[in-house]
Amino acid sequence: MLCRNIFTIHQNKDVYDILEQYFIGKIDPRDLVDGHAPQDKIDDPFKSDPTRDPDLVIHTPKPCNAETPDQDLGPYVTPTEKFYVRNHLWVPSVSDPDSYRLTIELPDGEEASYSLEDLRTKFKQHTINATLQCSGNRRLHMTQGSRSTNGLQWGVGAISNAEWTGVKLRDVLADSGFATTDIPDDVKHAQFVGMEAYGASIPIDKACDKNGDVMLVHTMNGKDIPRDHGYPLRVLVPGTVAARSVKWINKIILSEDESTSQWQRRDYKCFGPNEGDKPNWDAAPAIQETPVQSAITSVRWLTADRLRDNDLARAYGLEEESIVLQGYAFSGGGRGIIRVDVSTDDGRTWTQAQLKQHESKGSKSWSWQQWELAIPARKARGYFCVKAVDESYNTQPEGFEPYYNFRGNLANGWHRVPVHRSDK
Amino acid sequence: MLCRNIFTIHQNKDVYDILEQYFIGKIDPRDLVDGHAPQDKIDDPFKSDPTRDPDLVIHTPKPCNAETPDQDLGPYVTPTEKFYVRNHLWVPSVSDPDSYRLTIELPDGEEASYSLEDLRTKFKQHTINATLQCSGNRRLHMTQGSRSTNGLQWGVGAISNAEWTGVKLRDVLADSGFATTDIPDDVKHAQFVGMEAYGASIPIDKACDKNGDVMLVHTMNGKDIPRDHGYPLRVLVPGTVAARSVKWINKIILSEDESTSQWQRRDYKCFGPNEGDKPNWDAAPAIQETPVQSAITSVRWLTADRLRDNDLARAYGLEEESIVLQGYAFSGGGRGIIRVDVSTDDGRTWTQAQLKQHESKGSKSWSWQQWELAIPARKARGYFCVKAVDESYNTQPEGFEPYYNFRGNLANGWHRVPVHRSDK
Repeated sequence: MLCRNIFTIHQNKDVYDILEQYFIGKIDPRDLVDGHAPQDKIDDPFKSDPTRDPDLVIHTPKPCNAETPDQDLGPYVTPTEKFYVRNHLWVPSVSDPDSYRLTIELPDGEEASYSLEDLRTKFKQHTINATLQCSGNRRLHMTQGSRSTNGLQWGVGAISNAEWTGVKLRDVLADSGFATTDIPDDVKHAQFVGMEAYGASIPIDKACDKNGDVMLVHTMNGKDIPRDHGYPLRVLVPGTVAARSVKWINKIILSEDESTSQWQRRDYKCFGPNEGDKPNWDAAPAIQETPVQSAITSVRWLTADRLRDNDLARAYGLEEESIVLQGYAFSGGGRGIIRVDVSTDDGRTWTQAQLKQHESKGSKSWSWQQWELAIPARKARGYFCVKAVDESYNTQPEGFEPYYNFRGNLANGWHRVPVHRSDK
Repeated sequence: MLCRNIFTIHQNKDVYDILEQYFIGKIDPRDLVDGHAPQDKIDDPFKSDPTRDPDLVIHTPKPCNAETPDQDLGPYVTPTEKFYVRNHLWVPSVSDPDSYRLTIELPDGEEASYSLEDLRTKFKQHTINATLQCSGNRRLHMTQGSRSTNGLQWGVGAISNAEWTGVKLRDVLADSGFATTDIPDDVKHAQFVGMEAYGASIPIDKACDKNGDVMLVHTMNGKDIPRDHGYPLRVLVPGTVAARSVKWINKIILSEDESTSQWQRRDYKCFGPNEGDKPNWDAAPAIQETPVQSAITSVRWLTADRLRDNDLARAYGLEEESIVLQGYAFSGGGRGIIRVDVSTDDGRTWTQAQLKQHESKGSKSWSWQQWELAIPARKARGYFCVKAVDESYNTQPEGFEPYYNFRGNLANGWHRVPVHRSDK
């Protein structure tokens, strides 16, 4: 509450509840300035945040939390300026990139340090496609399908896909002197610290896995990574919840322990439906890989009179009033999507959507699978539903109630959209 | 049908349907002997099959398909003689193990050959714990929860856990001259062929993965692997559907293609609920990793008068009539189980079961997770249900109908057991 006028998000009931557990006392009245906490007088750290695309769907402006609008979830590569933004604090300013250094703290206490120039010239550069998804993507649907959840009420747009270029973390760790192919027993986690003090960690096996593709990226969709996404350098942990892909990274610590940050220890976890809002945080593991997910992002009605000159109508040979559904499916751990089932009658019967083909760079299937389905309009009644199956044959649960967790994390029940005829 | 009197399983309607697609013609009447196909006269190849434990639940005797009885699903390590048996043909006889050879066909046409002595002495020996599960485990529940499925109607016992000792396949492949750390582009699969002609394959990345733990095992639970489980040598592919852990292995082929066997190409696949019994086999990928699964294997009622001298009652501090539920949970790909939710009121409310602690040897969580829960009997109504969550936060679907496939593979809907009071 000290910083309520800076972090306006702290005034939300759900965030307030979380902060309450960190309450340490009230400010001595003698320290107040004009009746306010002195922090209220300091500069707004968000004032140098970048200007954002006006189409982004803003949930909170400070810190910026904004989802990709439905229409921009269509392209395989999300346009950079439409890529969803999930910031926990302000956006750090790096006015002199030449002075930037990445520090690696090795388990023996030694340190290694790299400039951006080092990273761009001394290591093999790699480019992969990977989707990032917030653990709160579709939280709104869990709230609607079950009961209230604590957190930003994201719809289907807390997910985006990009082409990322940078160096493999394992290459840099090896260069720093760490034994990436013979990991010492006392190192279990790679901790990442951002310039704004956000922190998270991943298992060291993932960090060092030849096919894990964990990267330090400086380039997004062919250009310097924008400030909102981590300029000058971010971690990219493909197949893992985006909360571990730390932006504005400037320190990596190889440790026996997970990151001690609240985002590793007191957030981004899941619980049983009965565990309520005072769960045993220490007993629950931090989320790393995410489960299979899918969503409908576009429903287009093609009335009979619009079929003649319509590309989709031609492509699908539609001859009567039709509906074209589009969306995405995605699974963690690099597990590709093998099937997307769509129902146009509220889950009674199913049809397989057409999976769009894209050449995805990387060791595994790190990118979402977009899909499309055209069906006669007369078959649509009640709700459209979508669910996906990944290559480990995991599937999505039908509802949210049996998997409810009060933080609304990893909401992946079937996505249901009511059938409303429109000419959208 | 030629061999109907030898493979009695071929007389089952579902197997007959599968075989029908391989129908190539009828025997010329001039070739019949006393009105029968000459094959009917040959010796019964099953006559030298081993004697089995009488407690195994036999589904078919020839080939032997038998599940582990419920009470033997309790121990962490399944007693060897109670380990479920899934044979596709007869059990090969190896009367002279010294003459046994494993042949590896390399992509350049060269071959390497190993005796059992070579495998036991020239390579580092490894011991891991791993669960094997048939893709048809719980098929019965899909049939009951949806509609008829083709295949053996396994209950919860087509799964078992053992300690396996042998050599890592990657070590043997490396010794044979194959570049396991720099896999050539034209090698995509490791094909396995058993002495009785069963065949299957796995992706070469899994075969060569340092943490994949694919092994050639000669020892099961500390003794020579028994004939029913692959004597003298079987493949063990932990985290993968058991159909790829080929028994009685004598040939490995490194290839651009999957195994051409019917078990790789025309079985052990899944389909959408609408795809019926004439699906597009070629379009569906072969099952490798399996989804999260769980089952209830024991329901014990402890009446009030039996609490005093009961170990469980003491351990849980039970003071009223109670029910103790036990079971297993398991997921593919080495993904550990992080939570088992149990309902005693047909899925309306849930409680977390206690996860039993076992030290599991191996690079990942290849073994099942056993669980236990004690609850007051007055809380039980309708059905007991169980569902598990693995470390990728995948969960089990509630029902079977939306994920029905006509082969009944990978049935992992919630396991529901009606509440019937008994003193069992």
